[in-house]
Amino acid sequence: MGALRRKITRAGLPSLLVTHAPDIRYLCGFTGSNAALALTRRAARLFTDGRYTAQAAEEVQAARVEIVSSAPAVSAVEWLAAQAGAAPAGIETAGFDPARTTVAELARWKAALPGRIRRGFLTPLPAPFVEPLRAVKDEDELEVLREAARIGCTLFDRILNELRPGMKEIEIAAELEHQARRMGAEGMSFETIVASGERSAYPHGRATQTAVPRRGFLTLDFGIIHKGYCSDMTRSVFFGKPNARERKAYCAVLEAQEAAVAAVTAGVSASEVDEAARARLRREGLAEAFSHSTGHGVGLEIHEPPRIGAGQKTRLQSGMVVTIEPGIYLPGEFGIRIEDMVQVTRNGGQVLTPAPKALIEL
Amino acid sequence: MGALRRKITRAGLPSLLVTHAPDIRYLCGFTGSNAALALTRRAARLFTDGRYTAQAAEEVQAARVEIVSSAPAVSAVEWLAAQAGAAPAGIETAGFDPARTTVAELARWKAALPGRIRRGFLTPLPAPFVEPLRAVKDEDELEVLREAARIGCTLFDRILNELRPGMKEIEIAAELEHQARRMGAEGMSFETIVASGERSAYPHGRATQTAVPRRGFLTLDFGIIHKGYCSDMTRSVFFGKPNARERKAYCAVLEAQEAAVAAVTAGVSASEVDEAARARLRREGLAEAFSHSTGHGVGLEIHEPPRIGAGQKTRLQSGMVVTIEPGIYLPGEFGIRIEDMVQVTRNGGQVLTPAPKALIEL
Repeated sequence: MGALRRKITRAGLPSLLVTHAPDIRYLCGFTGSNAALALTRRAARLFTDGRYTAQAAEEVQAARVEIVSSAPAVSAVEWLAAQAGAAPAGIETAGFDPARTTVAELARWKAALPGRIRRGFLTPLPAPFVEPLRAVKDEDELEVLREAARIGCTLFDRILNELRPGMKEIEIAAELEHQARRMGAEGMSFETIVASGERSAYPHGRATQTAVPRRGFLTLDFGIIHKGYCSDMTRSVFFGKPNARERKAYCAVLEAQEAAVAAVTAGVSASEVDEAARARLRREGLAEAFSHSTGHGVGLEIHEPPRIGAGQKTRLQSGMVVTIEPGIYLPGEFGIRIEDMVQVTRNGGQVLTPAPKALIEL
Repeated sequence: MGALRRKITRAGLPSLLVTHAPDIRYLCGFTGSNAALALTRRAARLFTDGRYTAQAAEEVQAARVEIVSSAPAVSAVEWLAAQAGAAPAGIETAGFDPARTTVAELARWKAALPGRIRRGFLTPLPAPFVEPLRAVKDEDELEVLREAARIGCTLFDRILNELRPGMKEIEIAAELEHQARRMGAEGMSFETIVASGERSAYPHGRATQTAVPRRGFLTLDFGIIHKGYCSDMTRSVFFGKPNARERKAYCAVLEAQEAAVAAVTAGVSASEVDEAARARLRREGLAEAFSHSTGHGVGLEIHEPPRIGAGQKTRLQSGMVVTIEPGIYLPGEFGIRIEDMVQVTRNGGQVLTPAPKALIEL
């Protein structure tokens, strides 16, 4: 909250309305689903509903809690407007995140404002305000993310022993998720991807009823939630004996992935990291087959800033945690993706998911 | 798509932009995550990115697919604007859903429009346009929902045999989810609720590390996804011997639930169904303890229209599928909820989740 206050002051912003749940959790610890946080330079107030009375009292730090019976964000806007009325220390505008606010919500908020300030009081912020703070993790957060990544690696290790041709993709997902729960995960951080055979050429192949063929790639992309924080990792393994082409393609992806990991360090731009992977695949004539960006930040949400992609000028900072996950997809043939979580430090990238990356043949 | 076209024509709407994923899936079958569907009275076009080339070719019906490298919704807006230029059959406005569009998205869409139509071309629709169509299921959808509900009941049956005092709530959730996957579920339709002992008084008690006490209520609220469609059911069971007060409270909830199920029929208003449950609990002095609404529609999303609550004037139609789930919550003591999925027909409500509702003592 301290960093946010400094940022509010620096931005010359009188007040801020926060409605995105992960932002709220990050700022004051509240994990309920229906809340709004209103901040002025001097005060912070969390609005939520009666279902969360006990939970808010227990969780919320650095903000006063107000239980309301109407929409929390509307109450928050009304409270901010009341502060605006209390001149001379009154506030004239409240910033909000236009990427997290629907057109319908904004209309409702405006309708709750007194006529004299209806125009101009609510100001869309030109860029996300809280997310950039969340992108740089503190030591406590890094410890939780490291632990989440470790759980992910252990899971991968366990599932490797269970994989057999003929298993349905969803059985593999079921086994993985069951083990995750047994290890104490709060849940999966996204829908588990199990894509086998030709389906491995789908970058986002959810687990289906398809049985794993006796020969071919199998891509596993999964993550767990631990103390609210997400893990994310991918490995492609091979059933049977890969031919020269399959082996060569795997090597190209692995080299691209390792080149991008090696490019990670504080101060480098996200696009340079992306280019490290892309250049390697381009050399193999696989530029077209690498149809997505190289990675993304990960934390309270599975996808957070920074985006590691072409044209992304954001400079990596020490304390960021990003995924590095180049892949290639050859429709009708196969696909391969290798993904690690990498912590950015001043001395380079530190891989948090140390599962083996040499091609595993099953 | 036919029903939508008729609705567009009836509304005098020249064109429509659809960006909400379940709406897109409903209208053209596409299940990818990054897409926009643009409709005029004569043409339909689905925009998505290169990751989905193969998947879109396979899945999309009744729309032409266009693979784009920028944001699909921006391309869709540009395409709609180009149609507007093609007079005399040109279109002057495109409706969009303000509850599914962020302020930032709308700004980007507007920026993509030629100056002469930037104002007024994109029109927020006064009410959701596609969701009301989705609320009334056709026979194929009903068959899938019935099957999803059946899987849910079988799961409940299986988990009943596993429940023991001392188990952690998350172990119960893990077991339930594992069995669900083994039965072919694509996933859970929401975070499984397992709330035992005093925690049963939390209406939305996610499974925690809490061990189930030797005596007291245990509420299980869970659903699976089958062929894209959600199931949803709740039962509260009792460990040990309930006392007279607990038994009486359970009976009151059960009678309220059955009264609301009996009230379901085509033509009745949602508020009348809600009132059927609420009146019963009011008579027991439990009106305050019933702190949420009676139910909601269920389909491609776990929460869909209609909402079954006080003041909801929507009339139920044959083919709707709703949940009926009254509950009571006595903080520091216990909570009870009983929930079925009910199909609305002209001859009343048909319960799709026929698991026993008499109090189960374990």
